[in-house]
Amino acid sequence: MSIGILTSGGDCPGLNAVIRGAVIKGDRIHQVSFLGIRDGWRGLVEDDIVPLPRHDVRGISRAGGTILGTSRTNPFEHGGIERVREVMAARGMTGLIAIGGEGTLTAARRLADGGIPVVGVPKTIDNDLSATDYTFGFDTAVSIATESIDRLRTTAESHHRCMVVEVMGRHVGWIALHAGIAAGAHAILIPEVEVSIEQICGWVENARDRRRAPVIVVAEGFVPSGEEHLHAPRGLDAFGRPRLGGIGERLAPQIEAITGIETRAATLGHLQRGGVPSAYDRVLATRFGTAAVDAVVEKRWGTMVSLIGTDIELVDLHSATTVLKTVPLERWDEAAILFG
Amino acid sequence: MSIGILTSGGDCPGLNAVIRGAVIKGDRIHQVSFLGIRDGWRGLVEDDIVPLPRHDVRGISRAGGTILGTSRTNPFEHGGIERVREVMAARGMTGLIAIGGEGTLTAARRLADGGIPVVGVPKTIDNDLSATDYTFGFDTAVSIATESIDRLRTTAESHHRCMVVEVMGRHVGWIALHAGIAAGAHAILIPEVEVSIEQICGWVENARDRRRAPVIVVAEGFVPSGEEHLHAPRGLDAFGRPRLGGIGERLAPQIEAITGIETRAATLGHLQRGGVPSAYDRVLATRFGTAAVDAVVEKRWGTMVSLIGTDIELVDLHSATTVLKTVPLERWDEAAILFG
Amino acid sequence: MSIGILTSGGDCPGLNAVIRGAVIKGDRIHQVSFLGIRDGWRGLVEDDIVPLPRHDVRGISRAGGTILGTSRTNPFEHGGIERVREVMAARGMTGLIAIGGEGTLTAARRLADGGIPVVGVPKTIDNDLSATDYTFGFDTAVSIATESIDRLRTTAESHHRCMVVEVMGRHVGWIALHAGIAAGAHAILIPEVEVSIEQICGWVENARDRRRAPVIVVAEGFVPSGEEHLHAPRGLDAFGRPRLGGIGERLAPQIEAITGIETRAATLGHLQRGGVPSAYDRVLATRFGTAAVDAVVEKRWGTMVSLIGTDIELVDLHSATTVLKTVPLERWDEAAILFG
Amino acid sequence: MSIGILTSGGDCPGLNAVIRGAVIKGDRIHQVSFLGIRDGWRGLVEDDIVPLPRHDVRGISRAGGTILGTSRTNPFEHGGIERVREVMAARGMTGLIAIGGEGTLTAARRLADGGIPVVGVPKTIDNDLSATDYTFGFDTAVSIATESIDRLRTTAESHHRCMVVEVMGRHVGWIALHAGIAAGAHAILIPEVEVSIEQICGWVENARDRRRAPVIVVAEGFVPSGEEHLHAPRGLDAFGRPRLGGIGERLAPQIEAITGIETRAATLGHLQRGGVPSAYDRVLATRFGTAAVDAVVEKRWGTMVSLIGTDIELVDLHSATTVLKTVPLERWDEAAILFG
Repeated sequence: MSIGILTSGGDCPGLNAVIRGAVIKGDRIHQVSFLGIRDGWRGLVEDDIVPLPRHDVRGISRAGGTILGTSRTNPFEHGGIERVREVMAARGMTGLIAIGGEGTLTAARRLADGGIPVVGVPKTIDNDLSATDYTFGFDTAVSIATESIDRLRTTAESHHRCMVVEVMGRHVGWIALHAGIAAGAHAILIPEVEVSIEQICGWVENARDRRRAPVIVVAEGFVPSGEEHLHAPRGLDAFGRPRLGGIGERLAPQIEAITGIETRAATLGHLQRGGVPSAYDRVLATRFGTAAVDAVVEKRWGTMVSLIGTDIELVDLHSATTVLKTVPLERWDEAAILFG
Repeated sequence: MSIGILTSGGDCPGLNAVIRGAVIKGDRIHQVSFLGIRDGWRGLVEDDIVPLPRHDVRGISRAGGTILGTSRTNPFEHGGIERVREVMAARGMTGLIAIGGEGTLTAARRLADGGIPVVGVPKTIDNDLSATDYTFGFDTAVSIATESIDRLRTTAESHHRCMVVEVMGRHVGWIALHAGIAAGAHAILIPEVEVSIEQICGWVENARDRRRAPVIVVAEGFVPSGEEHLHAPRGLDAFGRPRLGGIGERLAPQIEAITGIETRAATLGHLQRGGVPSAYDRVLATRFGTAAVDAVVEKRWGTMVSLIGTDIELVDLHSATTVLKTVPLERWDEAAILFG
Repeated sequence: MSIGILTSGGDCPGLNAVIRGAVIKGDRIHQVSFLGIRDGWRGLVEDDIVPLPRHDVRGISRAGGTILGTSRTNPFEHGGIERVREVMAARGMTGLIAIGGEGTLTAARRLADGGIPVVGVPKTIDNDLSATDYTFGFDTAVSIATESIDRLRTTAESHHRCMVVEVMGRHVGWIALHAGIAAGAHAILIPEVEVSIEQICGWVENARDRRRAPVIVVAEGFVPSGEEHLHAPRGLDAFGRPRLGGIGERLAPQIEAITGIETRAATLGHLQRGGVPSAYDRVLATRFGTAAVDAVVEKRWGTMVSLIGTDIELVDLHSATTVLKTVPLERWDEAAILFG
Repeated sequence: MSIGILTSGGDCPGLNAVIRGAVIKGDRIHQVSFLGIRDGWRGLVEDDIVPLPRHDVRGISRAGGTILGTSRTNPFEHGGIERVREVMAARGMTGLIAIGGEGTLTAARRLADGGIPVVGVPKTIDNDLSATDYTFGFDTAVSIATESIDRLRTTAESHHRCMVVEVMGRHVGWIALHAGIAAGAHAILIPEVEVSIEQICGWVENARDRRRAPVIVVAEGFVPSGEEHLHAPRGLDAFGRPRLGGIGERLAPQIEAITGIETRAATLGHLQRGGVPSAYDRVLATRFGTAAVDAVVEKRWGTMVSLIGTDIELVDLHSATTVLKTVPLERWDEAAILFG
């Protein structure tokens, strides 16, 4: 029996621990071997596949990124179910583990609906997948963002500045919420909650009045209420293409203009998704990996591994891919008590 | 209205974030002020109490330890309910937040049973409290242990040695389990599971045969099966008092003698409980702090804040203090697949 | 006897360790007291000065930034020598320790030339001051940049991308050189060395051909040869003011266009100057602080503390402020062997 | 032309960066190939040698330990010069790079004196080699020790304890000196300086009187004056062999007995020598590696690469191996000002 495994979409700390967990448990308990599919769905539809013996996963759970490579290829634009079935048959692949986010899991669900034997592993640095309490990658991202804000704060305090820190989160504000609470931010701005520039400046002034250097954490997808037009292009890049300024860089001059407090923006960007995974993420990813190979062996096609409380459970891929898990207003309210 | 707050028992990363969360929410939302009780129950029975204005909790969630100090004083040995009631009345304290582990919460429960208006916040670096999925401190401890094992492994590999790393956990093996999984240990030894020295050596030889430097993670409370007598004193300390060697230092020479592999022990000790809390612990501790002051205002005496899934809930102090939360065998089995 | 102390210019990890070292040695050995001047020269010319007892410097060497605050005020635009003499006399200040970079030390030198009793402590995160082998802050900046590149590399490798990482260094490339060597960059671009976009792309393709994800480290002051016009404004900011794109963001699309390799830019920015100082910087800064107070007591006006090999020596402020310490071509050549 | 390379003695962060620097520069500039000698001198006298192509050193400068393995084998006990010459001839090895500490470099010197074409690279985590300002590994060790002391301090403060932290340094106190300064220790105890237990307790009480938790940093080779007998065995280990208690564990109960302050000991041990090297060590090690291959190509047999100020120079192996570089008294005096 041979199982294919792929990682798809943006990279995320913990992917390698999932791979390692699945391969070792498959080798030891179920006597199954693994085939490594390179660069996500691309490798599957292009038949770019290599054996993945246990030896090759040695020690990888400490490494960031994914040893299999990743891409954003959509299998349904490259032959779809028929092509996937063909390659799997040619390779003698009797099951497939697809590790990825909303897009990947939606593709996996459609493949499963079409009869492809596939099991999903949820991956989202943004924590935006419903049907699982958390996924790996999120804890590392929050840790890096928190450490970065701790660092930026000392400069802000020395110079009596306001600092606006932009973290990941196009559609949901989980990273901003957790990093903002952990770092003691004076405001946390997320896509889910409407806040005006005036209200932001109120928190900034409040912090300043208590002799603090105001620190604002903003998710990249936040838009101040009444200023949706700010999404319009800001200037041109080196090739004359219109560019969108990040929300952090757009907010900083507005805050400075209104409050008179010197304000700087910092954008953490890719730093949040790379490097050594946190212990939390390694444990969760390892558990996901071993549970996924069990699901394959038990032919639980169309399911996804999931963290519920402290347990790993199998849930239907449909339940995981239909609703975006946004920050509930009460969680933001709970945090907002500490603002300003 | 004035609320007393104390931290008791061993220190733990996140204590300050609980204090900060409670004080700020109390100040802003409930208009209550706080009294800081110094060194746990000692400060309460000795009336060593200071005002704790909001200004004093500024920026403390990033700091390890506790700004209030701590001790292992048991209030029932120093006047008990009568003395506590007397001091609280003299100070105008209408409620009490007690942050601590099993001992502290048991005292809090007895006080509550006796009519003292007290709310508990669970603190255990060992993760051994039932009635809450996790508490703050555990994640930081696991992170530090994991990083340390990552470091120790490179030396073991360069010298072709076996490394035995002793982590905290006198009664339960949660830190060993999580750090061992995260660091890819070749064996995880915990108090809950019987393992013989022969079995340990089997894993060590297995790893060696695959050209790995064997890494064993052992909780301090582990005893090899059939060797309970090893708890007998080992030598004398500088003052002639009998001393107990740690389990790591006891195992290392045995493994070396049986397997012939050079073996060293490292004991992480207090490193695991100090320093900057992880982002995870700061978030959880902050949420516990704000929830605790709500519970006080709502007069939910005799309850404890608790993490259930991703929610903060109130549970009865009785439920929290009667059963030790040990590692279930299936969790260890799940990890043991990766051993050797 | 009372000594004034100020920190001026951009903040830098280690400033607090200088202050602590000077204050404690002054208190214990020389029986001198300190006055803390707030926000650099601003506090001196505006007489914003507070007592700085030993108690206030407790434990601060671990903290980033400066407890005294800082600014970019130039004393010669606010009363100059006369005003400085006046405030010092009024405060009974018999000596002054000025901690800062090229601008600060030039001002200190002019004040010393005019008879003001001042001693300098060199501070430059960029390592651009001659007359000292290193200063504090540089090691922390290099450490953070190196860790960040380590993180970014895993994402680049997973996605088969080229990553351009922009680090500090407007006029000199020391941070880029050291972080680039430490992180194993495939090219290091610094203001001191002319390199064309074609040569950069050659290194990128070379790395790609060996199946590596190319990593380019660029100092913010680098300009590709033949493309000086790129310094022209790029687009407008949120207030319609012209903005300069960073060199990293300008290089990335050019590399992608020429090589066909997907390329992303990351700008580390203020992250490099904040937060907990490295052990190296704390030791050096502490030694600078204790040496500076000795110099004041010995009335060595117009000198600056300096690291020569492993010794702390006093050098003339003139020697420190006339030549920018650039990266010698042979140091870059030595590193360039490892490019591509 | 083929060059042998080996790492010998205790492992040390930066060894891999030396190897990588030498191999890449050899390949690119000098067109020489490398042979990797396994486990130090053992691999040489036992002819356990493998090709070391450039591909094998990819990305290793970030990894702790040594990819070549190490041992404490002395070549003069296994055939000496004749055997070394024989194996080198059989392998076509025209030069040798030996990376190691005092023992390794002494062996290298004797081999060079006997006509073996060898160049040395100094490695000492303890910083005890004369003829070089610093070597790689020391900075990482100091960094880890400093971070650890930062962590331990918070526990000490919360519990109002004294903490004794034992760091590496059997013969010299450099790690203790630097980590002690960086972490703000209240006493630094090193083998080079006589200090009595009474004096130590004086510093401890001093710190306590100023409401600090006393932190003592002690090098493992320190002996309190008048108590040399303390080196006598302390108890028995698990096999009945006499064991020496560490100095930290011996001091703690004495300090507690004399001062009445609860005192704990922590021994950092192997943690200090493993794991990811600091940026400083990676840069220095890379420079050493590239300079060593140059020295081989220029047939500078019997020399060693060395850091003088900021330059890499070649020095005679004799000069490097005759004098132990101890901490000068004035450096300890400089630090002692901040004690207590």
